[in-house]
Parts: sequence; structure tokens; C-alpha cells
Amino acid sequence: MATMVNGQKRVGLAADRRHSFYGRDIVSVKQFSREDLTYIFGVANEMRSIVRRVGTTDLLKGYVLANLFYEPSTRTSSSFIAAMVRLGGSVIPIHGVQYSSVSKGESLPDTIRTLESYADVIVLRHPEVGASEVAARYASKPVISAGDGVGEHPTQGLLDLYTIYSELGTIDGLHVAMVGDLKNGRTVHSLARLLRLYDTTLTMVSPDILRLPEENKQELIAAGRTVHETDSVDDVIESADVLYVTRVQKERFADLREYEAVKDCYEITPALMARAKERMALMHPLPRVGEIHYDVDDDPRAAYFRQMENGMYIRMALLAAVLGKA
Amino acid sequence: MATMVNGQKRVGLAADRRHSFYGRDIVSVKQFSREDLTYIFGVANEMRSIVRRVGTTDLLKGYVLANLFYEPSTRTSSSFIAAMVRLGGSVIPIHGVQYSSVSKGESLPDTIRTLESYADVIVLRHPEVGASEVAARYASKPVISAGDGVGEHPTQGLLDLYTIYSELGTIDGLHVAMVGDLKNGRTVHSLARLLRLYDTTLTMVSPDILRLPEENKQELIAAGRTVHETDSVDDVIESADVLYVTRVQKERFADLREYEAVKDCYEITPALMARAKERMALMHPLPRVGEIHYDVDDDPRAAYFRQMENGMYIRMALLAAVLGKA
Amino acid sequence: MATMVNGQKRVGLAADRRHSFYGRDIVSVKQFSREDLTYIFGVANEMRSIVRRVGTTDLLKGYVLANLFYEPSTRTSSSFIAAMVRLGGSVIPIHGVQYSSVSKGESLPDTIRTLESYADVIVLRHPEVGASEVAARYASKPVISAGDGVGEHPTQGLLDLYTIYSELGTIDGLHVAMVGDLKNGRTVHSLARLLRLYDTTLTMVSPDILRLPEENKQELIAAGRTVHETDSVDDVIESADVLYVTRVQKERFADLREYEAVKDCYEITPALMARAKERMALMHPLPRVGEIHYDVDDDPRAAYFRQMENGMYIRMALLAAVLGKA
Repeated sequence: MATMVNGQKRVGLAADRRHSFYGRDIVSVKQFSREDLTYIFGVANEMRSIVRRVGTTDLLKGYVLANLFYEPSTRTSSSFIAAMVRLGGSVIPIHGVQYSSVSKGESLPDTIRTLESYADVIVLRHPEVGASEVAARYASKPVISAGDGVGEHPTQGLLDLYTIYSELGTIDGLHVAMVGDLKNGRTVHSLARLLRLYDTTLTMVSPDILRLPEENKQELIAAGRTVHETDSVDDVIESADVLYVTRVQKERFADLREYEAVKDCYEITPALMARAKERMALMHPLPRVGEIHYDVDDDPRAAYFRQMENGMYIRMALLAAVLGKA
Repeated sequence: MATMVNGQKRVGLAADRRHSFYGRDIVSVKQFSREDLTYIFGVANEMRSIVRRVGTTDLLKGYVLANLFYEPSTRTSSSFIAAMVRLGGSVIPIHGVQYSSVSKGESLPDTIRTLESYADVIVLRHPEVGASEVAARYASKPVISAGDGVGEHPTQGLLDLYTIYSELGTIDGLHVAMVGDLKNGRTVHSLARLLRLYDTTLTMVSPDILRLPEENKQELIAAGRTVHETDSVDDVIESADVLYVTRVQKERFADLREYEAVKDCYEITPALMARAKERMALMHPLPRVGEIHYDVDDDPRAAYFRQMENGMYIRMALLAAVLGKA
Repeated sequence: MATMVNGQKRVGLAADRRHSFYGRDIVSVKQFSREDLTYIFGVANEMRSIVRRVGTTDLLKGYVLANLFYEPSTRTSSSFIAAMVRLGGSVIPIHGVQYSSVSKGESLPDTIRTLESYADVIVLRHPEVGASEVAARYASKPVISAGDGVGEHPTQGLLDLYTIYSELGTIDGLHVAMVGDLKNGRTVHSLARLLRLYDTTLTMVSPDILRLPEENKQELIAAGRTVHETDSVDDVIESADVLYVTRVQKERFADLREYEAVKDCYEITPALMARAKERMALMHPLPRVGEIHYDVDDDPRAAYFRQMENGMYIRMALLAAVLGKA
């Protein structure tokens, strides 16, 4: 992934396990060990403490982030900007870039090599799977993926896992239920991939046509996890420690009657929450469009806005870590 | 408007009259008393003094502004960014956001609750009337309206009033003439609403079809103000202390001959200014398209560029005030 | 170009030759003397040293840049933002502005006079030739052109010349070959205009239909420079100290067979570089689309990414200089 240039990048992602993220790229959740995660969650905890006490720090004073978004994502781009400025660093916002094919415009490697001559770290959102790995290969400065196509969205996976850890104090031993479109949701795939490192039981709740891909399921089983599948939230609402809800999109169904038949099973209401554990976390990557009723927002178990906030702490931790300042 | 969350918002807007803006939302000119205005103008004076002496201050170091614009407004968004960075704070610029209906995209409350997990204060420009009040209701951090639809544009009203005060040293006792499209101009409505708090005489100068709405007129009369109406600038040029000019848009006229007949009455020329008081203020919210001749720009009474500059000081004052740092 | 306002602008561009850029506009490469260039390159050297040692400085703390781009240019706008934040200053990014004709929207002078009430220096990119000079005439704060139409792009010319100086330690005595579309490339015109101040030999390498305009050629000859012309890179590859390559665009050719016939002569390959001098600089303003083979990137003589980096140092030097802080 990374080449050794100016001493700014370490070779390989798994090479140094002494919790040193210095100079590493963040392009896939696959690159993390449990030790890495424990380390980064510890740094994120410190970041939360700094923000709550004094708002910002000067840890990254003198550092510049190139925030390169080839497709719009207000939530993610804002989160990275907030993370960088709260660390005392500066941001070059490059949003609304038209994605032009290689034949007409500049190649991604050339863009990356130009930007790294201005900046110290690059965050990249790109519509094509694998773009972050390409960028990381050519860059001598650290590259952090902010999602590429239907591929990876590693910082989302990290913030989701960190939210479980923050809300419930542990990850081992939990029953995590994932609800909704488990076939297409990349946040589900990233989180599941991270959860395989922990002693968890997983229940996948989805309509039949939106089930978790077999490949992802086998990955969990190979890691020794127990995976249940069902099409009804009723089956998990009383036992789940974590309910991770995603959107079921009408347009995925060929037959609208099929959609009408299932959609209500996937709306989390106050009545449903009344049956859930007293201590559990209701999560959603947002945006939501009806999957969680607004009346649930005031429930102390509704963790989705804290989840957003955690995104900033995780990104602060990653930025500080890859720049060797954590 | 505001709910009590983390001690960051005060309950209600008129509750605390001891000039404390701390934690308040700024969503309507209606919320201000004369005491509020005197206070904020005093802070704006200090801001001007700081900028002229040293450029910036560290008053808001550690604070982050989410500058959320659902429609473009270079002037207003730039003014808020300049205000925040001159206070030592940082900005998350969220411009060019496509406004998507609630049915397809995320609800405004969810967007606001996400952004307030990253930022300390939110500035919102939105095409729909009432959007700022909705945002303020859901946010636990202060929300400042940067204009919503044909509704309010409170910071524009404040900067206009502050410019009158800065140019002429007082507001009581003045004759203020408003010229142009008084029917559709929200800046006119906001300024008139603020002027009702002062002992002023107002003359409304407009073509018949673009007269001030009856509601706004009655509001002024109910407050004890004298309101004259005319269709000719000639009637006010010699007596006005303030000439507040707005654009008369051709497209408002069904009959173009009607437009041709009136438009020249509404162009401020050096010849017209020669008849005006020696001490008066010629104002315009900008952009202008022919309402004020370029040759007037060098006239010391031409206040419109100072008006722009005042916008930055007013916004600095508001940001510092709602964050409890004024 | 500049008018005296608030002591912030010096009268004229060539008036003060004691290397004082303070308050000057940067709108044309024509405005520079050799002494000016020596001075600004010295400041750029210091900027490089600062960035490499500590990343940023507080030299422009308290200063605000309005970065006004009427047409997109990721590379140039990012470079100016990076330059300003590495100097400790702040940026108002105004990108994606729709260019609207004077009849429909606001005049450029009004926009400039508004922005200078918020900012201390304005960078302007505009699609119309001469726009920067207009802006400079109306602004009391310094204006730096970031390119206007097919006209000038002075900071590109400066960074190109600075790269030659950095790579080879001198400019006098060099043989500079310019390759590609010499007719339409404004970077070629700007660099050639600067090179006329130095004791250089120039060879212009282009297809017949893309030759350097006669006017530019005569300017070089009038300055005492020797100018050769050829249509083949073969003629210069062994003797050139600098190979400045630009894109030959297919769409410039009426007859595509003509394009096919010449295009390969203008691709710089490792085989071609094997015949070049051991100490020389291969440059390109980027983006490239095939003019330089990717396999050349690792050649130590490939200077184009260092050229990008130099752009940041030159812009840092200019910003500091016009604000009187160099």
C-alpha cells in the first residue's frame, strides 16, 4: 500500500503492530487488528475529552489536510473538516470536483501527487471501488479513505464500532442485530468485518432479497462467530444489545407489494423500543428516511446522534495517529 | 425557540433582557429590544476597532462554525466566514448543498443535529420561510439565520440599522426614505421592523404596484411612527437623512411601458445627490443593477460599501455574543 | 494599476524598485524586473525552508485572503489556500461562482469592493482577459491574478521560472526548449516573457499550426534573445537544459491525420530521456494527458511535481510580499 518516501510512510499496513499508525494509510477495515482498534479508541476517548473541555487543541498546528471529495457527502466531509480544525490544523476543501474519466482529465495519481505537494495528509472520497488504494500507492503522504464507491468506508466502520464500545463499555459478549438492507449497505459490511475480531453473536435481519452476501457471512463464520438470520425485528428486539438499523429502499424491490409487506417490520417505533433491553444501543449511520420514528429520538438508548459525534473523535484520532502526533 | 440543553441555550428570546445573547438563536428581527440593539452595536464597534488595529482576535479560538447554505449567497456566506476567522474561530463551509425535499433526502432537523455534533454554532441560509425557526427548535447550539426564503434576514436588518447609527451617530429623530421595490424586498421589511423601535419618520418611495405591504405599514403606525408614501424620489431627496435604495426589477411589471415610465425616478445620480442634505447616508443592500450610478461611489455620503463592511462587524458581534464571549 | 487608498497601495508597479512588493497588485509578468524576480525567489527559498522545517509560520496571522474563482481550477485554488494557511492566515473560499454577465448580475468592481471589506488580499481567477486589471484598479487592497481567460497567469510564470532556477541553480546561459502547443498555451507565453530578461537561448518545438505567435517571438528577439524553431523534439533533446512540455490537443487540428502524424514526436519517453543531458529539467504545467510517459516520473530530472510544490512557495512569497510581511 505504502512506499517509503522521505521517511513519511511505513512499509505495509500490518508490519508494525506496536500501535504505530504513523505514516500509515487508512484504506480498509481489513488492515486493523484488535490492538489497533483498542489503541485508536483510546486516542478517540482523549479527543472527546479535549473537545468537551476546551473545544480544540494545537496538536496538528502546522499541518494541512487536503479534503478531496469527488462526490458530495456533507456529513463525512464536514466531519473530517471539523476533526482537522479541532486539532489545530488547516484544511484545503476540494469539493464538488467533477469526476472526469482518465481519457479527458488528469489521472488520479497525478492529482494525488500534486495535492501532497501542498498538504500533509489526504482524505479521499471517490465513486470508484479501489480508488483509495490507488491513491495510497502513489502518495508518499498518508491517505485516508472517506469511502470509494460500493467498496470500503473504513472510518464509518471504525466510528460504528467505537460507538458500540462507548455506549456499552465492551464489545465482547454482545448480541448485535443488523437490520434493513444488508445486501447493499457498505456500512453493514464494514462493521461486520470489524465485529469478527470480537466474541460477538450476530443476527442479520432483512427481507429475503436484501440478505447479507454469502461471502460476508462466511467471513464471520470462519472467524468463529455465530450468525443468525431472520426477516423480522420481532425476533431480536428483546435480546439485542445493539440494533444497527439501515434504510430499506423501495427501489430495490421489483414487486412493490413485496416492499409494502415488509417495510413496517423495519420501522423502529417507541412501542418496539418498549420491548428492548434497558441497556442497549439503537444505531443508524444516517441519513434516515423513516426507519426510525422521530419519537424515538428522546429515548436514551437512541445513539445515532452520539454516533455522528463519535465520527469526529475517530477522525481526530486517525488524523493525529497517521501524522505521528497521537 | 430554544430548549435548555447542556446549559447552552437560554429559554426564550425575550426572557433575559440584561443584554445577554449567550446561547440565544438569531432568527427574527422581532426578537430584539432597543436595549439588545444598543448592546450589539457596542460590541460591533469594538469588533471594528479590533479589525482595524490588529486584523483578528483569539476571542473564539477553539470554536467552530457550521456555515450551512442551501442556496448560494456569496456576499452573506463570505461575510460570516470572515467574521468567524477574524474572531480566531474555524469554519466548516457547507455551500452548494442541493436542497432536497423531505421525502427524498434527510430532514432539516437531522442535518442540524448532525452538524451541531461537529460545530459550536450554526449559520443557516434556506429557501423556505420558517426553516431557521425549525432549525433553532431542534438545535441545542445557537442557530443564526442567514435568510430563509422571502421571510426574515435578521443579520441584514441589523447591519442596515447599525450603518445608519454609524453614519449619523443616532437613529432617533431621523427621516428615513426607503426607495424601490418595497413590496418584495425582505431587507426593507426587516429594516422597517427595526426602525419602529426608534423615533423616526419614514417615507416609502415606490411605484404603485410595489408599495410596502399594508401589514408592514400598520406595524409601523401601531408603534407610533409617521409613514408617508410617494412614488417620486423628488419628494424626499432634500429632506431625507437616510436614502435606502433597493432594486426595481423589470420582471415585476406586467406592462413594460409602466416600467419604462418609472425606472428613471429610481436611479440615484450625482445630479440628484447635489440636492440632498450635506450630512445624510445613501444605502443599498447590494447587488445593485443601475439603481445607483457609479459616479456616485466617490460621494462621501455613499455608504453602501461601508454597509458591507459593517455586515462583518455585526456578524462578529453576534457570533461572539451567542457564544458568550462578547 | 493601483490607487493610493489608506496607505495600502503603492502608486504604480515599477515605481519602487527597492524590492518592495508591499501593496502591489500581481496582474502581469510584464511588471517584474530581474531585481524583483531575484527578490521573490529569495523569499520563496525561505518559505520552502520554513515549510520543510516546521510546516507553517505565523507571518500572516490576522490576515484574510478572499480566494475568488469564477471558473474551477483545483490545482491553482488549492495552491493559494495552502500558501495562505501555511503562512498562518485564513481563507474565504469562493469557488463555483457562476459567472454572470454584467447585465444580469453584479459588476466585478462591486464584488471586489465588497470582498475587500472582508479580506486583506484578493486572489482572482476569471474567464475574461483583463478582469484582473479591472479588479486591481478598483481595489484598495492587493489583487493577485490567478489567471484570466487566455490572458496572463503571472503566478504560473513565476513558479515555472523559479523551478528552472531551483533545479539548475541559474537561468542565464541556459538553453530552454518549449514543446507542444505554443500558440494557445498561456503558460508558455508567460514563461517566455520572463525568460527574455535572462541571457537564454530558446528553441520553440511545435507542429507548424501551433507555433509561437509572431508577437511573442518578436518580443524575445527585441530583448536580444536567440529564438530557434523546429517541429521535432529530436532537434533539442540532446542540448536542452530545460524541456518545458505542454499538451498538444487533438481538437486543435482540423485534419486528424495531421494530428496522428505529429503526436508521437511530442511524447517524452524514457528512451528519449536517455539521450538528454545528465543535468537538465523536464517540466510540465500539468495536467498532462499523455505528453510525458508515466515511466519517466522516477527520473530525477522529472521536475514537474517539484514544480507544483514550488507553486506553493512562490504564492507564499507573493502573499507575504504584497502584505508587507516578507
